[in-house]
Amino acid sequence: MPNISIRGKKMPQSPIRKLAPFAEIAIRKGLKVYHLNIGQPDIKSPEKAIEAIKNINLDVIAYGPSEGNKSYRKKLASFFRRQHVNVDTKDIMITTGGSEALLFAMGSIMDPGDEVIIPEPFYANYSAFSEESGAKVVPVTSSFEDGFALPSIEMFENLITPRTKAILICNPSNPTGNLYSEQEISQLGELAKRHDLFLIADEVYREFIYNPEDIHYSVMNLVGLEQNVIMIDSVSKRYSMCGARIGCMVTKNKEVIATAMKFAQARLCPPTIEQIACEAAIDTPKSYFTKTIKEYKIRRDTLISELLKIEGIEVTLPKAAFYCIVQLPVKDTDHFAKWLLKNYELEGETVMIAPAAGFYSTPGMGKNQVRMAYVLKKEELVRSVHILKEALKVYKAIKYKKPMLID
Amino acid sequence: MPNISIRGKKMPQSPIRKLAPFAEIAIRKGLKVYHLNIGQPDIKSPEKAIEAIKNINLDVIAYGPSEGNKSYRKKLASFFRRQHVNVDTKDIMITTGGSEALLFAMGSIMDPGDEVIIPEPFYANYSAFSEESGAKVVPVTSSFEDGFALPSIEMFENLITPRTKAILICNPSNPTGNLYSEQEISQLGELAKRHDLFLIADEVYREFIYNPEDIHYSVMNLVGLEQNVIMIDSVSKRYSMCGARIGCMVTKNKEVIATAMKFAQARLCPPTIEQIACEAAIDTPKSYFTKTIKEYKIRRDTLISELLKIEGIEVTLPKAAFYCIVQLPVKDTDHFAKWLLKNYELEGETVMIAPAAGFYSTPGMGKNQVRMAYVLKKEELVRSVHILKEALKVYKAIKYKKPMLID
Ligand SMILES: Cc1ncc(COP(=O)(O)O)c(C=O)c1O
Ligand SMILES: Cc1ncc(COP(=O)(O)O)c(C=O)c1O
Repeated sequence: MPNISIRGKKMPQSPIRKLAPFAEIAIRKGLKVYHLNIGQPDIKSPEKAIEAIKNINLDVIAYGPSEGNKSYRKKLASFFRRQHVNVDTKDIMITTGGSEALLFAMGSIMDPGDEVIIPEPFYANYSAFSEESGAKVVPVTSSFEDGFALPSIEMFENLITPRTKAILICNPSNPTGNLYSEQEISQLGELAKRHDLFLIADEVYREFIYNPEDIHYSVMNLVGLEQNVIMIDSVSKRYSMCGARIGCMVTKNKEVIATAMKFAQARLCPPTIEQIACEAAIDTPKSYFTKTIKEYKIRRDTLISELLKIEGIEVTLPKAAFYCIVQLPVKDTDHFAKWLLKNYELEGETVMIAPAAGFYSTPGMGKNQVRMAYVLKKEELVRSVHILKEALKVYKAIKYKKPMLID
Repeated sequence: MPNISIRGKKMPQSPIRKLAPFAEIAIRKGLKVYHLNIGQPDIKSPEKAIEAIKNINLDVIAYGPSEGNKSYRKKLASFFRRQHVNVDTKDIMITTGGSEALLFAMGSIMDPGDEVIIPEPFYANYSAFSEESGAKVVPVTSSFEDGFALPSIEMFENLITPRTKAILICNPSNPTGNLYSEQEISQLGELAKRHDLFLIADEVYREFIYNPEDIHYSVMNLVGLEQNVIMIDSVSKRYSMCGARIGCMVTKNKEVIATAMKFAQARLCPPTIEQIACEAAIDTPKSYFTKTIKEYKIRRDTLISELLKIEGIEVTLPKAAFYCIVQLPVKDTDHFAKWLLKNYELEGETVMIAPAAGFYSTPGMGKNQVRMAYVLKKEELVRSVHILKEALKVYKAIKYKKPMLID
């Protein structure tokens, strides 16, 4: 039997999705599982998008341009400009999700052995896309105690080697819920400029900010950094259209666009119907966002205040996105998360959480942390935390031994 | 300014799409361009698929499972079995187009420096996906004179080195229109088995076969090769749903599926709406295919007989898919194809063809060949060939010199 690739062996499993088989077991047992583990909002997609799909007027679902439909790119550029993000139509390449934008960006700028510095904890799939591209992730650790503030510029600078090709940030951050300030972004920009590095900013959570005084500062607005900056965007969270698989890679660097275009041409084009839906979604009224943000704020506040009632749990108030990192009074959240699905239930229900170790690249980090997404309704969040609380009591009481868990 | 990657520099441009900017120039001049260059059928997508989209009943366009919707995978497995292709639900991973299936297959089995043997001319994006995976394409040349029959097993065997990891075939073949026999597939299977290689078969044109006595033989039916075989499939051509971006990777090798699953999880999931459409498309009545095949047969016969009327043109009758390789009486079809778009017109019209050099990996091959797709209506094909004929006269008469063409 021929062997799979070493790369394939080394590809990390998604820490968010890898527990899925255990959840299936729980569901097969008839349990209800509350998904605190995944960033799948239950917010309705905009009516305009759904309507556009229902009114589709096509005989042939044909290939579109590799860089995405022109009309959509144009409208998207205006959308960004209305948000004061400096973008032209020609800077935009529509991709199959923000995921593909990340893969194209990495593939276009990094060769095997090149290094990308990423503040950890980070969106776990950054590791996967790096592995696919042969690039090496160099983590710079941000700390729970600091509310996961951007590590100091010195800490970044100390990690720069001749192989460093890029710095990748997620702003607002999944999984920490942090939002970087204009000053932090500017400092990173200067650093990138000084060392001739790319600065990739994943801004897919741009819209989800909870304090009216907080403003999102896009890397696209960094003056003099036009050749260094690559922005990643997606409709997945903005319009609760995760399944549309539409995102984009944005840069004013023409060489990067031209190179990414070769990757784009190879895969032909992004989905046609969903692009039409996304184009329609741009006309979504502002009230949709106001309502959504209000709802998420309630959920955030509910989740955090409920969590803080549990002894031994620590959490900081996230400023943006819809995730937070929670410190649990357990040694190994990976074990605990599996146990919740396989061995625990409270009145026929349990919860699914994402062990945080998968969001760190430094081994051993985050073992007592989990990421929770507050994408469920308020009552469900209250219930989930209640289940978690009761579960923790049982888990601690049983003096857990690993072999108990049948794998 | 930071540099793009060497991989990015080496990524080949799509020979099919790279002339697009020249076509835009022609269109901007007000010319009508007949697209013989691209495999975008004008056949209507099945009504059932379009209806499913119009009747979509979703509030939230949510992420689905990374391996694709279970209900779709199940139905697809039955579809394959009805076609006598030996496939179970668990062997199927739904991908974003056959393109992504190719990328996942290569990434899962090949490391940088590994070799994949491919009969040339081949679907040009195989080079791109190999480059993305760091794999090296080792071409085995099939010849125009033989009707692009599968090269002898000895020719394959001579190319096998310790780094050879896979053989990749396209059956039916884009760009040659050839169909491999059961015997040829079996011999390749034995070879793969003997040398412990993967055998990847891109079967996205399975349905398009023109002689009633010809039968498509799938690699999935090779007994004893279950661990070696990977099949690539797509709805793009089958249902004229290229823009749906839905395909699949199929294999009974559990390790390959598990590895590809890590790539799949990183990109989250294939498009949701389009999967629903594809699931509905499976109920498309047989008459749809009968009609489509009949239509393509007419087009094939039209294209070939019209072409054969032109002096100095050579072409063989393709058995399957909807492409053929045509030998033109010019030295450099790349130059000629650009000239057609930039400098030629017949009564306000011109044609776009795909220079065949891009379908070869051996430098210098295919310079006098082009690939034509017969995806246009009969009258349009007749007109296209007429334009080509008149263009050839002009092109030959002007004693062409390269610098004339302004780039
Ligand atoms: C930080 C971040 N970036 C990118 C993505 C990819 O999203 P998509 O591919 O759905 O656009 C996600 C999805 O959860 C994310 O959280
Ligand atoms: C031989 C072959 N394989 C794969 C593909 C990829 O098709 P898709 O990604 O649309 O499924 C094509 C498209 O033209 C093709 O011709």
